[in-house]
Amino acid sequence: MSEPGFAPRPTLEAVAARAGVSRATASRVVNGSEGVRAPLVERVRRAVDELGYVPNQAARTLVTRRNDAIAVVVAEPETRFFTDPFFAQQVRGISRELTAHDNQLVLLLTEGTADYQRVGRYLAGGHVDGALIFSLHAEDELPALARRAGVPTVIGGRPGWSDDRTLYVDCDNRGGARDAVRYLLGLGRRQVAHIAGPLDQTASVDRLDGFRDVLPDADPRLIVEGDFTPEGGARAMTALLERVPDLDAVFVASDVMASGALRVLRTVGRRVPEDVAVVGFDDMVSVAEWTDPPLTTVHQDIEEMGRLMAGLLLRTLEPPAQGGAEPVRAASIVTPTRLVVRASA
Amino acid sequence: MSEPGFAPRPTLEAVAARAGVSRATASRVVNGSEGVRAPLVERVRRAVDELGYVPNQAARTLVTRRNDAIAVVVAEPETRFFTDPFFAQQVRGISRELTAHDNQLVLLLTEGTADYQRVGRYLAGGHVDGALIFSLHAEDELPALARRAGVPTVIGGRPGWSDDRTLYVDCDNRGGARDAVRYLLGLGRRQVAHIAGPLDQTASVDRLDGFRDVLPDADPRLIVEGDFTPEGGARAMTALLERVPDLDAVFVASDVMASGALRVLRTVGRRVPEDVAVVGFDDMVSVAEWTDPPLTTVHQDIEEMGRLMAGLLLRTLEPPAQGGAEPVRAASIVTPTRLVVRASA
Repeated sequence: MSEPGFAPRPTLEAVAARAGVSRATASRVVNGSEGVRAPLVERVRRAVDELGYVPNQAARTLVTRRNDAIAVVVAEPETRFFTDPFFAQQVRGISRELTAHDNQLVLLLTEGTADYQRVGRYLAGGHVDGALIFSLHAEDELPALARRAGVPTVIGGRPGWSDDRTLYVDCDNRGGARDAVRYLLGLGRRQVAHIAGPLDQTASVDRLDGFRDVLPDADPRLIVEGDFTPEGGARAMTALLERVPDLDAVFVASDVMASGALRVLRTVGRRVPEDVAVVGFDDMVSVAEWTDPPLTTVHQDIEEMGRLMAGLLLRTLEPPAQGGAEPVRAASIVTPTRLVVRASA
Repeated sequence: MSEPGFAPRPTLEAVAARAGVSRATASRVVNGSEGVRAPLVERVRRAVDELGYVPNQAARTLVTRRNDAIAVVVAEPETRFFTDPFFAQQVRGISRELTAHDNQLVLLLTEGTADYQRVGRYLAGGHVDGALIFSLHAEDELPALARRAGVPTVIGGRPGWSDDRTLYVDCDNRGGARDAVRYLLGLGRRQVAHIAGPLDQTASVDRLDGFRDVLPDADPRLIVEGDFTPEGGARAMTALLERVPDLDAVFVASDVMASGALRVLRTVGRRVPEDVAVVGFDDMVSVAEWTDPPLTTVHQDIEEMGRLMAGLLLRTLEPPAQGGAEPVRAASIVTPTRLVVRASA
């Protein structure tokens, strides 16, 4: 992953030197104290502007210890954030946990990756104690930005790299996918297709790997990549029906995509589950139970994962225990999944 | 409106006095500078903790001028925020405008009014340059909290009080309601009912006033209060049908409530629009066009209102113009509405 280049921060000493005043005077101006003569105030302000000086809020947080505020950054444009119910559920869990610990949830929205430098500046500005980042795509800059900002971070979903300082919370995507495919085979289905999520996301890769664990020799035409939207699921289903007209089952990597796939199957007159059995992933409230027919799907507790992310981050922010107790060692968390059987398979 | 009680903030001078050190030493510790002896650092930190000293970030922002960050606070619990599409649309407009000006959107979520003191602390902490607050209810503490925090604020929706320093953006709720009711009367309807929004919100009051402007002598049984949810709309419709079985039209104060009302009418076998004509309010994307039948409704441009709120706030944050130009005077904005005719009336 490439690392964005932050220049070293100008110091208060540099501001004082530039303004030709003492460090104490510069400090008084920066702190907004009274009693500094107007021309000196003006010189310090100009030096601040010219050098791009940002007060060392992080250092000051060392004194007050905490802002009691946690940033949530979703690596998706705001439009997708509000249309995919996954995010609302994850944020709900985060909100519950942070509120229970009297921490403010600070959601930093973006229109796209072009806005990441601004998010990095906000994280570096000392406005939050930590960050929760989720829905990462390959080569995503956000984790590096958070690291440069010196902000402790927990990632939602297994990151695309591995080291021992990156904390994350994920569900057992691969195991859940295996359960889904085995269930379809157990129903006697012979031509099981897979609509994958976007393969620049580890959740999609892990679910595809689970599919391949059970069906290592699957015809490659049985696998189509989608994009976690209903429209993407519909397009993928259409493509599958053209490529493999006699398919009799589909494991879809998200309920939202499965809703689009079901629509296509209905339109072309394939009965679900008689002609084509469908299994989703997520067990998303407001989706899986409301499709026609209701979805058999792999349940993951999305709200609970949000709660776990927030809890893990708050633990890493705790000061080391006094006295004899061992400090709490944080570790990444992988939650189990389970198959929920409804009418679609 | 009652004002929450903030104690006056402890000053750096008070910290220095408590710690028994000079102001300069206290300042160096608070700023995280090197070169202060450890016992003194410890004494200052203890004084900071004991007094609850918060560094005067707002004053420091006077020097750096801007955080380039704007808070958005919705006076609703996070659960409602994510289920009512109104909020996503308003935030979308805000996000577009802030991004265009390279300002970070900082969404402060809450679980309820119990969290307002924490929101007030965050606003007072100097982390944002201004605040956009919307969906206020009567007696809501948020505007007073923002004022105490010294954060310039624009309110979405006419506030429940009037003074000349409160800026807001709203649509012409009363005029839009009049248009809706006149349209129903023009269709020859005689018994026009109204499902109002929650009457602790000015949008609901203004729409009810518009209804009464046209029908000043309406039977009070024709007016039922809802809560801007589909379930509330359904309950209100059921109540109206019991009270006034021969009603032939309903003006509903939101599309979301109208979707619930339509469901009830279908269930009891009243045809829309033949037996009962229905007009909504909002012209909410993803609601009005998708109901069965599609809704005739009063259009307001929700995303544009978000954009206008953000633009108005950014203008108030601009430094006064240099030289001869007059400073830009900000003023509240009321946008027009228009009736959109679809199948329901």
